[in-house]
Amino acid sequence: MPLVGVVMGSSSDEPVVNEAVKTLEQLGIDYEVRVMSAHRTPERVAEYAQEARDRGIQVLIAAAGGSAALGGALAAWSTLPVIGIPLASSELKGIDALMSTAQMPPGIPVAAMAVGAWGARNAAFFAAQILGLQHPEIRQAYDDYRRSLRER
Amino acid sequence: MPLVGVVMGSSSDEPVVNEAVKTLEQLGIDYEVRVMSAHRTPERVAEYAQEARDRGIQVLIAAAGGSAALGGALAAWSTLPVIGIPLASSELKGIDALMSTAQMPPGIPVAAMAVGAWGARNAAFFAAQILGLQHPEIRQAYDDYRRSLRER
Amino acid sequence: MPLVGVVMGSSSDEPVVNEAVKTLEQLGIDYEVRVMSAHRTPERVAEYAQEARDRGIQVLIAAAGGSAALGGALAAWSTLPVIGIPLASSELKGIDALMSTAQMPPGIPVAAMAVGAWGARNAAFFAAQILGLQHPEIRQAYDDYRRSLRER
Amino acid sequence: MPLVGVVMGSSSDEPVVNEAVKTLEQLGIDYEVRVMSAHRTPERVAEYAQEARDRGIQVLIAAAGGSAALGGALAAWSTLPVIGIPLASSELKGIDALMSTAQMPPGIPVAAMAVGAWGARNAAFFAAQILGLQHPEIRQAYDDYRRSLRER
Amino acid sequence: MPLVGVVMGSSSDEPVVNEAVKTLEQLGIDYEVRVMSAHRTPERVAEYAQEARDRGIQVLIAAAGGSAALGGALAAWSTLPVIGIPLASSELKGIDALMSTAQMPPGIPVAAMAVGAWGARNAAFFAAQILGLQHPEIRQAYDDYRRSLRER
Amino acid sequence: MPLVGVVMGSSSDEPVVNEAVKTLEQLGIDYEVRVMSAHRTPERVAEYAQEARDRGIQVLIAAAGGSAALGGALAAWSTLPVIGIPLASSELKGIDALMSTAQMPPGIPVAAMAVGAWGARNAAFFAAQILGLQHPEIRQAYDDYRRSLRER
Amino acid sequence: MPLVGVVMGSSSDEPVVNEAVKTLEQLGIDYEVRVMSAHRTPERVAEYAQEARDRGIQVLIAAAGGSAALGGALAAWSTLPVIGIPLASSELKGIDALMSTAQMPPGIPVAAMAVGAWGARNAAFFAAQILGLQHPEIRQAYDDYRRSLRER
Amino acid sequence: MPLVGVVMGSSSDEPVVNEAVKTLEQLGIDYEVRVMSAHRTPERVAEYAQEARDRGIQVLIAAAGGSAALGGALAAWSTLPVIGIPLASSELKGIDALMSTAQMPPGIPVAAMAVGAWGARNAAFFAAQILGLQHPEIRQAYDDYRRSLRER
Repeated sequence: MPLVGVVMGSSSDEPVVNEAVKTLEQLGIDYEVRVMSAHRTPERVAEYAQEARDRGIQVLIAAAGGSAALGGALAAWSTLPVIGIPLASSELKGIDALMSTAQMPPGIPVAAMAVGAWGARNAAFFAAQILGLQHPEIRQAYDDYRRSLRER
Repeated sequence: MPLVGVVMGSSSDEPVVNEAVKTLEQLGIDYEVRVMSAHRTPERVAEYAQEARDRGIQVLIAAAGGSAALGGALAAWSTLPVIGIPLASSELKGIDALMSTAQMPPGIPVAAMAVGAWGARNAAFFAAQILGLQHPEIRQAYDDYRRSLRER
Repeated sequence: MPLVGVVMGSSSDEPVVNEAVKTLEQLGIDYEVRVMSAHRTPERVAEYAQEARDRGIQVLIAAAGGSAALGGALAAWSTLPVIGIPLASSELKGIDALMSTAQMPPGIPVAAMAVGAWGARNAAFFAAQILGLQHPEIRQAYDDYRRSLRER
Repeated sequence: MPLVGVVMGSSSDEPVVNEAVKTLEQLGIDYEVRVMSAHRTPERVAEYAQEARDRGIQVLIAAAGGSAALGGALAAWSTLPVIGIPLASSELKGIDALMSTAQMPPGIPVAAMAVGAWGARNAAFFAAQILGLQHPEIRQAYDDYRRSLRER
Repeated sequence: MPLVGVVMGSSSDEPVVNEAVKTLEQLGIDYEVRVMSAHRTPERVAEYAQEARDRGIQVLIAAAGGSAALGGALAAWSTLPVIGIPLASSELKGIDALMSTAQMPPGIPVAAMAVGAWGARNAAFFAAQILGLQHPEIRQAYDDYRRSLRER
Repeated sequence: MPLVGVVMGSSSDEPVVNEAVKTLEQLGIDYEVRVMSAHRTPERVAEYAQEARDRGIQVLIAAAGGSAALGGALAAWSTLPVIGIPLASSELKGIDALMSTAQMPPGIPVAAMAVGAWGARNAAFFAAQILGLQHPEIRQAYDDYRRSLRER
Repeated sequence: MPLVGVVMGSSSDEPVVNEAVKTLEQLGIDYEVRVMSAHRTPERVAEYAQEARDRGIQVLIAAAGGSAALGGALAAWSTLPVIGIPLASSELKGIDALMSTAQMPPGIPVAAMAVGAWGARNAAFFAAQILGLQHPEIRQAYDDYRRSLRER
Repeated sequence: MPLVGVVMGSSSDEPVVNEAVKTLEQLGIDYEVRVMSAHRTPERVAEYAQEARDRGIQVLIAAAGGSAALGGALAAWSTLPVIGIPLASSELKGIDALMSTAQMPPGIPVAAMAVGAWGARNAAFFAAQILGLQHPEIRQAYDDYRRSLRER
């Protein structure tokens, strides 16, 4: 049963999102991946977000570029923690997506990561930090990773 | 019956949004004003956008700051033209809202106006230009305004 | 008889503008394409804008980079709705064109789309939303496109 | 026993940080507040971060302006989730702090919130979302808050 | 007979433009001041620019904020040198006007000065440098000013 | 005898500066080209600027990237009009050079052109506009160029 | 005999520069203060920089806004270390001065501090770090200050 | 015995850092190179910085991208002068690293150089300027380099 729902706005975002997916796998975290758009398929986003907690999802990860409304839309329809990966897919190369992701109004936070692949990997690591509060094996996996960084 | 639906993300946005409202009145355009948030009340936004056309609304105007998802959310749930007023209400003073409003992904446009009061007034004028294609009296009112600019 | 006038500042902008053109064709909207510059051929812009409505044009689309004055110039000489596509053609890669397009003074709006190809496609979709208010077949074509997005 | 450690870089940041504190109180979340600087008192930060989990802290909130290294420093010395509030305290008014907070390298995430008071409140709400995964009464408090937003 | 035409987009720009005017007076340069807008009164701009040289004008100074098309419009309709003063009058505080003024396409230059009052004064000084090539007394006045700077 | 002194900060700037040079040739304007740096060879800049007017130079063109102090340095040591071409040669791609070039303090203007090749060509055209006030054949050459733009 | 030369571009910069001066005094470092401008009084800057080392100066501090060429000009005429304080005195509020100060071309570095008062104080502290390598009492004074930060 | 400690946040930064290393060698300055991260190996950074002075290091050079906390972390744990090289390694291409490096809070300066290779070379030159105050042969080497610039 997946603990993390990874959502991307467009299938063209897949190469960057894969950095998150590979990291989740490396940490042994169950996940699912969905392509849906806050703008093109809002009802799918609403439905997915509203059902996520009951389906056992504990953390949502949203990757989107440009206006990057996906993370905010998931957060609007769910009270699960949402982690946003701003993508550099528009001509403005991610500064737009960073601002759109971070500058959420009071009440409905989205956790903004770095733009692009750095952020994709960190979204998975941050999910691990959250999940590690309840799942000792995930905490262990992330702690081991951190130890490996120190020992390199 | 209102032709324009003016929506703001927060009642604290009212002073700027009033610039749009006053301009609509000056042009004799019927409108309604709503406060609803893409993030705090998404179902209200979805419902309002989905019903708008059947209620006779022809143009939607959305004013929001920061992540400024309101215009995009209305556009996601409706196929009416949506005009976005980026507000300078966050600490980043509107550059965030401008990017969030303009950088919409292909398929679901939002027409970005200038940040703040300039944009609020222009949202009303742009609505008049759109409505003027079908409503001769609105076209006339805007043409008269333009003539008055030249004659000042 | 064309309903949409697509204007670009330089023939070197054609590859991006073609994204708008292809979208207009896909939606079955009659259009014409012109190359003229607010700075190099201002009298052509003035003449084109002033005659556009009488020639049956209902929406103007202007694509320009850098100072990107084309949309504003068309709007200055016409009262038709003008949609601006900011291009990334200068060394500043479109942030200049986005600001120039969006930050119009009160009275003379230009509807700013996203920078580059996203915006080119959305200019056509936004034209369809405007035209769809009067032309049921255009409304249908855009609604069908939106439905296809949801069904993908 | 506090679940959330709220850390600010300078006591002059207190007015903004109080927005986070008031929100934590409103949600009934136990917290503690500390003033320490990644640059002026790095050993205090290292010690605090390393001991936090054993003292029962589950989420760290860091508020800092300018280079805004505090969130990253806590994240470097702990594997708890760290939420960063970028402050507008420098002459560059928070765009510096937003970039410093969000652009963390792969492996050591910090969850960037909006600049200033919006972000301060959202840091508390995001902590509630994380803690709500294990603490039903916190989840309830945040869900109630969200309901209240919808009912206003 | 005025040598310099000082044009501002809006009478609300007058306080900043006065810095240019006072500097022209201090240097003994004949000037005239006009209020006209590239967007609200384009035909007036076109007419003024086209007649300027024949009326004896040798340098045009244009002050405008936001999209700041005024300098470019004058340059489009005249081949006199045009100096642009980007104003901080929009919510984006002049970065928009600086880009709009400077990023002119090849063929039609506008000389961008600093944003606001610094630029207003420098527009007058730059006009003096240009005029000083033919008018020895203007060259002398500017040289004297420069000497006074060194002697302070 | 050259009327225009074209100065670049580094010989690696030559490809862009050649756009200015080719334009000067196309307009039949006598020029000379120098490589000297405000920072690496300040005495050469001081000497060149101080002697330029006596050698018959009437306009200085300075191309530089990054801190882009060259235009300002020439302007500091001469009272001739100085045109600055901001180059995209640093990692910040010209936004730094544009600000450094335009934001001159009151008293010592530099005329900022667009970043890169657009600006290089326009520096030559702007020189032609200045020189055309006294040299009828240069005025004619630029007017012919402008006419050719309209006739294309 | 002063070890540090503090130079500001304009006497209006004095309030911010005083933050550097007070810090130097607090650390017991001998200094002198000069007002001179890279653009208005370049020969004074050249002379001051060239004589500074022989007069016993070991570190130069330059405070300037906008184009902020002062630090680079001192560095061009001297081989002493130059510390730059970017000021927020222009309408662009210091982002221009930060870029102008930091983006020096290879060979002639300027050490950029933070914009405004933060940077003014840090310029003095950085001077203390440099001087502390040879002057044990300055090293001691800065170490004491750092200890006091930890003990607050 | 090395006088300069060159530290980079990641071994992938080596190509740019080599520009600093080659410059140090060219000036005959003894150095050592280390890879360590403020975020991944904070204890290594703390230890290295705390021991550096006793090991004879007089200047620290830190190269990092994104949040770029490395320079600030070294400065937090040492009172040696720290020179920061902001790298363009993140998707935001160095503007993030420049702000993170320069915008240090009062008390703990880092000397920000230009982004990327320019800054890497200048970090070495700035180290030479500092060390030249005590080491005549380093001063000589840098003075010779500067002379060679003038003689080219």
